[in-house]
Amino acid sequence: MVILRLFPEASLGGKSDRNARSTPTPPTSQPANTANTASLLWHAYHALPSPSNQVNWAGFYVLDASTPSQLILGPFHGKVACQTIRFGKGVCGAAAAQQKTQLVPDVEKFPGHIACDSESRSEVVVPVVKGGKTVAIIDIDCAVENGFEEEDQRKLEELAEILSEACDW
Amino acid sequence: MVILRLFPEASLGGKSDRNARSTPTPPTSQPANTANTASLLWHAYHALPSPSNQVNWAGFYVLDASTPSQLILGPFHGKVACQTIRFGKGVCGAAAAQQKTQLVPDVEKFPGHIACDSESRSEVVVPVVKGGKTVAIIDIDCAVENGFEEEDQRKLEELAEILSEACDW
Repeated sequence: MVILRLFPEASLGGKSDRNARSTPTPPTSQPANTANTASLLWHAYHALPSPSNQVNWAGFYVLDASTPSQLILGPFHGKVACQTIRFGKGVCGAAAAQQKTQLVPDVEKFPGHIACDSESRSEVVVPVVKGGKTVAIIDIDCAVENGFEEEDQRKLEELAEILSEACDW
Repeated sequence: MVILRLFPEASLGGKSDRNARSTPTPPTSQPANTANTASLLWHAYHALPSPSNQVNWAGFYVLDASTPSQLILGPFHGKVACQTIRFGKGVCGAAAAQQKTQLVPDVEKFPGHIACDSESRSEVVVPVVKGGKTVAIIDIDCAVENGFEEEDQRKLEELAEILSEACDW
């Protein structure tokens, strides 16, 4: 599976504005940038052949400012989701705690998997790290096993680096 | 068109957690609550007959803390969107400025319409008001004209009241 050969700057700072009547966007707005990035990821995957077009959740959890070592739901496309995840719990929590991408071909075999959507069969979770601290994770689920491969991981890690710099985490 | 006969508490405070391994959610998280509400609105509309299932954008713009009288993109489902909208501009800006729902059967006839998605043909925008201040808008677009009626307006206004109380705007 090949994703994100071209990742438009559109989603990362207001260049997506298709109408000059809206005002320019500060390039630092984390909520707005992650909202558009979730949309772009969803539609990019769904424009590709199977298994990519069977992505059933794409979005973000961000560091919960009110609770140490906890992620809280950010923008996403997909069905309603768990609102908080502790560092270390499930695939998302592992990526956050270890600051290491989790490429999971079969979520049922992942210890402590959190089944927010029972349709999910595989998952890739990439941490967004800034100044040595996990500030968010990019989470993408697929409704079939082996939905993601190393190229997804590489491209999503590049995206995480861009977001780390571009947003006011 | 009949929407949201039952609006689950799921989206408004962590009761959506389908797995006890995730932790309880504070009922006040605006980013998490609006993210799940956008998902719920999208899937509720798409579970209904036409024209409801032709909704092509459902989500939020929230008050931009960094710029007076400006909305900034919040969580949504749909294609990538304008990141900021000035109060008074387009349908969203009118709802924000007037604190009054805008039920627009044909967006092409609305003065100053912002065409974030050229597929949109009708739109309903409901302000979320707290303490007399517009804190957000709920924005739903449909790919056909006359996508929304007064019942949508009433139910979405009830939702806006719930969100006004439930979230830490």
